[in-house]
Amino acid sequence: MNGSGSIVSNVTYLEALYRPRHILIAGFSSDPKKAGVRFLEGLKAQGFGGTISLLGRSAGTHETHRIYASADELPGDIDLVFNMYPASATPDILPRIAARGAKVAVVFTSGFAEQGGEAGEAQKRMVAACRANGMRLVGPNCPGYFYLPAHVNLTSQAGLPLGPLALVSQSGNVGITLWDQSRMLDIGWSAFVGVGNQSDIPLYDHIDYLGDDPNTKVIALYLEGLPEGQGRAFRDACRRVSRKKPIVALKGGRTAAGRRAAQSHTASLSSESQVYSALFAESGIVEVKHLEHLLPIAEVLYRCPPMKGDRVAIVGSGGGHSTIGTDEVELAGLEVPEFSARLQQAVATRLPAYAPRRNPIDMTGGFTKDPSLFAQFTQMVVDHDESYHGFLNYGLYGLYRQGKLDDGHVHTYESAAPVLGAIQDRTGLPIIFYSPYAYQQHTSFTALRDAGIPCYPDLNLAALGLAALRERAIHLMREPMQAERVLSPDIPFGPKRPGTEADAARVLANVGVKFPRMMLADSAEDAVRSAESIGFPVVLKGVVPGLQHKSDLGAVKIGLSDARMVEQAARDILHGVSIHVGPKGLSGYLVAQDVGRGREFFVGVRRDFTCGAIGVLGVGGVYAEAIGDTNVCMLPASPLSVELCLNKLRSKHMWLEFRGEPALDHGQVADLLNRLANALEAHPGCTAIECNPVMVVGSELMAVDAAFYYDEERPGA
Amino acid sequence: MNGSGSIVSNVTYLEALYRPRHILIAGFSSDPKKAGVRFLEGLKAQGFGGTISLLGRSAGTHETHRIYASADELPGDIDLVFNMYPASATPDILPRIAARGAKVAVVFTSGFAEQGGEAGEAQKRMVAACRANGMRLVGPNCPGYFYLPAHVNLTSQAGLPLGPLALVSQSGNVGITLWDQSRMLDIGWSAFVGVGNQSDIPLYDHIDYLGDDPNTKVIALYLEGLPEGQGRAFRDACRRVSRKKPIVALKGGRTAAGRRAAQSHTASLSSESQVYSALFAESGIVEVKHLEHLLPIAEVLYRCPPMKGDRVAIVGSGGGHSTIGTDEVELAGLEVPEFSARLQQAVATRLPAYAPRRNPIDMTGGFTKDPSLFAQFTQMVVDHDESYHGFLNYGLYGLYRQGKLDDGHVHTYESAAPVLGAIQDRTGLPIIFYSPYAYQQHTSFTALRDAGIPCYPDLNLAALGLAALRERAIHLMREPMQAERVLSPDIPFGPKRPGTEADAARVLANVGVKFPRMMLADSAEDAVRSAESIGFPVVLKGVVPGLQHKSDLGAVKIGLSDARMVEQAARDILHGVSIHVGPKGLSGYLVAQDVGRGREFFVGVRRDFTCGAIGVLGVGGVYAEAIGDTNVCMLPASPLSVELCLNKLRSKHMWLEFRGEPALDHGQVADLLNRLANALEAHPGCTAIECNPVMVVGSELMAVDAAFYYDEERPGA
Repeated sequence: MNGSGSIVSNVTYLEALYRPRHILIAGFSSDPKKAGVRFLEGLKAQGFGGTISLLGRSAGTHETHRIYASADELPGDIDLVFNMYPASATPDILPRIAARGAKVAVVFTSGFAEQGGEAGEAQKRMVAACRANGMRLVGPNCPGYFYLPAHVNLTSQAGLPLGPLALVSQSGNVGITLWDQSRMLDIGWSAFVGVGNQSDIPLYDHIDYLGDDPNTKVIALYLEGLPEGQGRAFRDACRRVSRKKPIVALKGGRTAAGRRAAQSHTASLSSESQVYSALFAESGIVEVKHLEHLLPIAEVLYRCPPMKGDRVAIVGSGGGHSTIGTDEVELAGLEVPEFSARLQQAVATRLPAYAPRRNPIDMTGGFTKDPSLFAQFTQMVVDHDESYHGFLNYGLYGLYRQGKLDDGHVHTYESAAPVLGAIQDRTGLPIIFYSPYAYQQHTSFTALRDAGIPCYPDLNLAALGLAALRERAIHLMREPMQAERVLSPDIPFGPKRPGTEADAARVLANVGVKFPRMMLADSAEDAVRSAESIGFPVVLKGVVPGLQHKSDLGAVKIGLSDARMVEQAARDILHGVSIHVGPKGLSGYLVAQDVGRGREFFVGVRRDFTCGAIGVLGVGGVYAEAIGDTNVCMLPASPLSVELCLNKLRSKHMWLEFRGEPALDHGQVADLLNRLANALEAHPGCTAIECNPVMVVGSELMAVDAAFYYDEERPGA
Repeated sequence: MNGSGSIVSNVTYLEALYRPRHILIAGFSSDPKKAGVRFLEGLKAQGFGGTISLLGRSAGTHETHRIYASADELPGDIDLVFNMYPASATPDILPRIAARGAKVAVVFTSGFAEQGGEAGEAQKRMVAACRANGMRLVGPNCPGYFYLPAHVNLTSQAGLPLGPLALVSQSGNVGITLWDQSRMLDIGWSAFVGVGNQSDIPLYDHIDYLGDDPNTKVIALYLEGLPEGQGRAFRDACRRVSRKKPIVALKGGRTAAGRRAAQSHTASLSSESQVYSALFAESGIVEVKHLEHLLPIAEVLYRCPPMKGDRVAIVGSGGGHSTIGTDEVELAGLEVPEFSARLQQAVATRLPAYAPRRNPIDMTGGFTKDPSLFAQFTQMVVDHDESYHGFLNYGLYGLYRQGKLDDGHVHTYESAAPVLGAIQDRTGLPIIFYSPYAYQQHTSFTALRDAGIPCYPDLNLAALGLAALRERAIHLMREPMQAERVLSPDIPFGPKRPGTEADAARVLANVGVKFPRMMLADSAEDAVRSAESIGFPVVLKGVVPGLQHKSDLGAVKIGLSDARMVEQAARDILHGVSIHVGPKGLSGYLVAQDVGRGREFFVGVRRDFTCGAIGVLGVGGVYAEAIGDTNVCMLPASPLSVELCLNKLRSKHMWLEFRGEPALDHGQVADLLNRLANALEAHPGCTAIECNPVMVVGSELMAVDAAFYYDEERPGA
């Protein structure tokens, strides 16, 4: 379900949600022990300037607010309903409120689809009834929301500072956790949206809205799962927004048990985490792997400029930290290359004769006399070597010896901070600071952050921050992604299930997948004739219906270079199959051109709950499953989506130019995936189609085996 | 260099270091601005009860302490010297102090081997002179040390609480960082040893000593590198100690640039991190990957019992945290399996009808009324399902709503803590707590830790804590590791460099490595005769001296099943080689039995700076390098060391029973590695020997290709 069929435009209901003039708290009780009063007080404490009405058991007033006793008597100008009625009453009351013209409801109430069964059906009916009356829903099972620029706060959280960060989350506790963490990072908030069951307003509508919101500079996302089939619309919205401002996401439910905890659907268990990683990558979203990284990475993306290359200079004080910091930066995929001779000379003028002039710079002591030494050495790098793209500063900044500086110190930690910040502003090169004390809420760090420098007490996180800035730059430097539209070829086959490998190959050849020349043969003699017609060398395979791993029975013979060998091979196959499956097991032979032993590639497509269908690429061959190096590619595939997918393979170097063989052509791979996707679409019962291996023959891709999987069957990888 | 040749026994000098009765501060100045006074005051503030003497410029006293003006006048009962003389004076003075009978010196002074060159030579001479006079050294470039049970503290850090944690570190800043972090974790300290340049006393002597120290329950280690060749002695010491108490280590300098930062040696760059991981695994050391994990993982290992299986029950409050916590536990290699029917029923009696009865338990609210609900639900799991091995508790414990509990609450956070701790004590099942506030130094968490429950504000860390406890249990359940001694076979070849593949095979066959039958042939006709003598099918390879990748030239033909095919193949190879290398490129043929296309295994040995020699195992074949899935195995190899190595491969399932083929026999692999190691030992100039691929033929290992690498050549993987 998306907004296209709605009688209320997106703009209207999102405006009503984010900038309401009239809010109704529905299910209000004046009892101060009940939550209604708490939410009302919270909303007023936030300074909300519009009208607040209440819907409760008996008409009257609470403080200055009118209490209505019936939904049918409500005024017609309500923008936003905050619903606290129990699950038993909500489906009846909300449509009646909608009928009075209310535009959007935030349904705090739990007990709907998250319980499954009948409660899920009740949710569907409720959404339909509200939409029929022109009202859209957030939730149900929504943990609350706020939009601080409009002084709207319907959470239990008071006193959060205003700032540039918006959080869209499926969990309220994640919100509470990040609100607490934000104090340590000196971060303020614009919006929090608890999307709950995502019954109506799609999550990506919030992202679209926040993308245009001038008060929001970065969007953080905690997502356990999208509703069925919303993957591509989500991607399209995030693509638009991520060109304007960064989006950072954590996927919850990345393991089978984690997904059970999230009570998400169970479709395509084995690689949901890969599906979302591919979805995020193609959407321009920076993915984090741990909850504790979500806020810091969001922070770094709004405080710092993107990093335009991989080269990091590390500047600070202290041996262990410099070594570990260098490890972390390199393990995060960046480089810590040596300084130029010119820079080394400059460094030497400032360090004792015995000190190394390398990257990282370790100034050893001195900063307790002058905390601006960090900025001075950073500036020295900038002045003498233009090849660096970003900086990690490190040291016992801020609270070493309880923050005590030497007598006659030149700067304080606080006054040194803007000196460093100015370098980042002037050069456009990002700077991140590591100090073990950085989360201890101290003016030293607040001053750094005010100057635009994020500070972390965690070298791994500092390195991941630089890597996120690099990822952001790469995303922004790309042409806006445009999925290639592949016209469905005129498919000359019905959706009949292919019975054998040869059938499967024929079906796929019809949609333009390239195979070696191949022919079926009934007998050894027939196989020889086929081989002569195809041309030597050939591969001979036994056709054994229902058998998955032919090579295990010796039913595959390769490199047959003349007639006699084919004849011998045919006899050997008959013998092998007879022993294992019985003399009637062999229904014939498949003779195929032998394209040699090149790189073996895995190319497959399969249906997916979130995205409709996805592609899978990776290391192919007999041991593909055991090697387990495959990754998800979004469909329709484009050269860029193929590149993003292959880049994440551990075997990525194998698909570049390798031992004299050319690099895989991403366009050709995308084309093959899209053709397989078309075939998948044409076969309704089919869950997956795999070509394994696809031989990389020079610059061509040749599928040398193909299989269609139906329903309960599990594809190989 | 190790202690065996010393005239002072280990026990004596380590006792003098850890429990000195008389300490000399050498290089002391009474100037209160100088560091000497600071260290003296620190030592006295720590309550040191023995004698403190001083060696300075002019004789006299400082406070009650006698100042000697000459080393030659020192009394004969000095246990420990803390040396603060500059690098220019130290090499002269220390041996003179040693001559007076001092047992051990901690050399704070920098400017020795860490600078390389002549300063390294000066260090060597100083060590030799001190040892000749019976004194051993810690450092130089030692950032200080303390042993709090004996009230000895020679660091700048005052006021650390006494406790069970010892840290052995190559970096002082790592010490400062962990001392600060320990306050957040309520951890106390026994010892800190800054080993500095490790010029004399080997690091593992400290580990041995602390292993016997009743005041130390866990040893944390920050290590940038061991001196040349100390790997095996380090492993042997850590093996002994790790059966008595846990050791946790972080390796600094895991990347090439990180190692440059650590100024460590540059030998065997590409896999030093793998070498140390293997070394740690075989030593029973738990390795952490990030500095910020070193202390928490040390903590969990001393507070909690080892975890005797993989099954984790997750119990707490809040949706997002339960989902992410489940992900983290599973991603850490453990399981979060469903509850038994009996436990589900029990859970149902305590939760609302709609709430799921799954693992993880989400009690939703309630704990602000009774914080002991965490313990109650944990106890419920214990009572109704005995299949779980450990627990993760999670929730907004301690500081939710600034720590305010509901009116009429049953427990406080503080009083609920021992209820939970008692479950761990009673059952021997470890429990770790996640709360986002856990590092905020609050009595709620101190109470939990006092009750034996570690608490972290990081779900990843909590999961890694459980995984560390699991690793510890597996280590303790194993038979004490005993490296198999492989007798060097009577090697019937000189250390001559093998010129061709056939030479290499012959050399290795002589030490018992199995190869397919193979013969050399001069001509096509000769090759046919050889093939007939070997038996078909055969593989034919062109012998092209100096050529690495024969298959790229079409110089390898497999599956040749009769004479005619061999003849044809020989002609094709001659043709291919002539085109690429010229007609004289081919010096002959190698005919070998074709053992089929099984699993291709990589087996190699190579010299290593730290360990003398190491083994390498992994995915073999033409694409071994591109797939890049190899790992280090310590030598001499044992079935267990092979198992530890293979377990870390991404392809680990490939080496178990796979598609009807039996699992690799670890004993056979160990035997092969040890035979290769013997060959390596016999060839002094040789840096590596590789068999790639080794075919896994049934239960046999057959090397089908072999190469010796010399000096500057880089082995393939």
